[in-house]
Amino acid sequence: MKNVIVGQSGGPTSVINASLLGVFKTAKDRGADIVYGMVHGIKGLLDKDVVDLSKQIKNDLDMDLLKRTPSSFLGSCRYKLPAIEGNEKTYDQIFATLKELDIYAFFYIGGNDSMDTIDKLSRYGKKIGSPIRFMGCPKTIDNDLAITDHTPGYGSAAKYIAATTKEIIRDGLVYDYPVVSVIEVMGRNAGWLTAAAALAKGEDCEGVDMIYLPERVFDVDAFVKKTGEMLKENRSIVIAVSEGVKVADGRYVCELADHVDYVDAFGHKQLAGTARYLAGKVAEKYGVKTRAIELSSLQRCAAHITSRIDVTEAFNSAGAAVKAAFEGKTGMVACLKRVSEDPYMCITELANVSDIANVEKKVPAEWITKDGTYVTPELIHYIRPLIQSEITPLWVDGLPRHLRLVK
Amino acid sequence: MKNVIVGQSGGPTSVINASLLGVFKTAKDRGADIVYGMVHGIKGLLDKDVVDLSKQIKNDLDMDLLKRTPSSFLGSCRYKLPAIEGNEKTYDQIFATLKELDIYAFFYIGGNDSMDTIDKLSRYGKKIGSPIRFMGCPKTIDNDLAITDHTPGYGSAAKYIAATTKEIIRDGLVYDYPVVSVIEVMGRNAGWLTAAAALAKGEDCEGVDMIYLPERVFDVDAFVKKTGEMLKENRSIVIAVSEGVKVADGRYVCELADHVDYVDAFGHKQLAGTARYLAGKVAEKYGVKTRAIELSSLQRCAAHITSRIDVTEAFNSAGAAVKAAFEGKTGMVACLKRVSEDPYMCITELANVSDIANVEKKVPAEWITKDGTYVTPELIHYIRPLIQSEITPLWVDGLPRHLRLVK
Repeated sequence: MKNVIVGQSGGPTSVINASLLGVFKTAKDRGADIVYGMVHGIKGLLDKDVVDLSKQIKNDLDMDLLKRTPSSFLGSCRYKLPAIEGNEKTYDQIFATLKELDIYAFFYIGGNDSMDTIDKLSRYGKKIGSPIRFMGCPKTIDNDLAITDHTPGYGSAAKYIAATTKEIIRDGLVYDYPVVSVIEVMGRNAGWLTAAAALAKGEDCEGVDMIYLPERVFDVDAFVKKTGEMLKENRSIVIAVSEGVKVADGRYVCELADHVDYVDAFGHKQLAGTARYLAGKVAEKYGVKTRAIELSSLQRCAAHITSRIDVTEAFNSAGAAVKAAFEGKTGMVACLKRVSEDPYMCITELANVSDIANVEKKVPAEWITKDGTYVTPELIHYIRPLIQSEITPLWVDGLPRHLRLVK
Repeated sequence: MKNVIVGQSGGPTSVINASLLGVFKTAKDRGADIVYGMVHGIKGLLDKDVVDLSKQIKNDLDMDLLKRTPSSFLGSCRYKLPAIEGNEKTYDQIFATLKELDIYAFFYIGGNDSMDTIDKLSRYGKKIGSPIRFMGCPKTIDNDLAITDHTPGYGSAAKYIAATTKEIIRDGLVYDYPVVSVIEVMGRNAGWLTAAAALAKGEDCEGVDMIYLPERVFDVDAFVKKTGEMLKENRSIVIAVSEGVKVADGRYVCELADHVDYVDAFGHKQLAGTARYLAGKVAEKYGVKTRAIELSSLQRCAAHITSRIDVTEAFNSAGAAVKAAFEGKTGMVACLKRVSEDPYMCITELANVSDIANVEKKVPAEWITKDGTYVTPELIHYIRPLIQSEITPLWVDGLPRHLRLVK
């Protein structure tokens, strides 16, 4: 018996289900009996909430639908396992359930925090002499994982951001009066997603005028001044700004707004957005029309526009994790390694999960221009291959068709 | 000599350039010499800012790019011609320019306000005995034009809204705790766009839980109460709400927020959004996670996802306007008439512009459910055919390629 189990964790991406399919199909091809799915990640395992994936993914059409389905098919969680020391009971419970399900290998698709789960489980497994292999499959739109060249999920989010930015740039030029559009892009600490707005520029597009990443301290006055200078040259100014930009004293720009809408269930203040705040500053100063556009959750779920490179790499890296586990590896992550620039080529390579868990990869300082208002050609060169080629949605009755979990 | 001139006016749609192509190609096919484009609509004509479209649209590839290009290719304006009486000078100036360009027929692609331009120009033309024909080509994402079954531009916006709503619904289910997502859709007075969220529901999708149109008075307390009841049944609640919903005293819901971000160049208060306000109310009352998602300008410019029906109808109705003008008609609009429900079939039909200009078509009361929180199957049946079939973007280097005006 070779049963395996797979879970999805953290925020979804447009291709997180391509990773799931990669685990499912490769495990099946390599002789797995039952491929279990944890519902809502490790929390589902603790609650013994698992499904037999063969009953969900029944044929080739289901596979094609699954890799085009946004959000985590199995559901996700933001639950972080406690430290091993002093919490052995939780770990014993997990290992008892895994034993009950006769699990041979355990796969977890996620970002930094999820890799921490793999790290802890593999360490505990070694400690108690468990033969179960624990492997991580990287995913995050944020692209902030160490070691791997980039993360599955990033390319499709970058493609969505670049494509919609191109559309917003065209739209901004429609009238004959000045308009300043501020596009707010996800990424609290790393600017990879915001940088993707740079891809909009080309023969058929003016491109964005400024790009602000959270890696640099943000100066509101300098921003307003520079926007004013640009308004002298151009009718439409489009600016991409990360939601995570902070001013010198460490506050997020969105915290500068003088009102709080409400405090949510977790005690987090819901502040007016960064784009909204900055658009207000520009309107106040220059009396021009402004637009604040939040790209919102669609950055992580607009599966109708994905990168084929990304989908393929998500599938392949998950498959590589399965192969490694079946060959005896544990406590590792299947990363991507760029072996050629032109033509672009990536292979998979294993890394120790302890080198990836809880580490955050930011945009290197040398890939941001000196004045901090744009990115360098090196950064564009790095991202460009990741958005190439498309996966056409399966259109049914005018809309993209998805696959959903049936319990 | 048969020169014609065409302009685009009002807010853009994803297919407004398919209408432009319809005028250009049909006029050329029917023997027009020069097809001029007004840059920024009638304002461009007043400034003698026109281009020869043959120098912009040079081959079949340009045509294919043009109909996939968002925003108004020629630029737009929100300029409304003054009343004829007392402003004959403005009209004389326009007719002098048209004479100078040797114009045979004049086409204007736009909504209510733009049809007013056609109305006034054709009336003035008759008054002074001008032989120039003036024809309107309807377009607006709002679908609020009288007489025509629907407007070109609406189908693609509806498709975008329905497709992204499906993605947001999947995304909302990702975690194992309650989430309320409020999607804000364009439409100040008419709820056609918001109603399109109903299309999300199907075999593979739970659909939205509530839909609020501006045709009904909005009751904030009733909304919060109903959301609370729904939270007892479902983990994820998704609500589509029109930006134009108003409470009983006539104020927009977004005006209920107790702060104003700034006052823009036109003296309009920039208020916190409707979705944002309502999400805040729900969070306050139930302490659950909420998300406010504004679909923003992408509703009118997400040309990467358009309806083929819509693109074709935009092209065809513009072509019908040209045909009619060449046959001597003036002061008319090429409308769409649904001649068959199943299979869906629309033909073009001429209507007098005076019956369309400045009239606003709202969602009929009988297409909204009694409690005002959803739409009826009749409304869904009306919209569904308009989002059918796709136009694939022309992908170049990972992104949709556009055509832009070269001056």
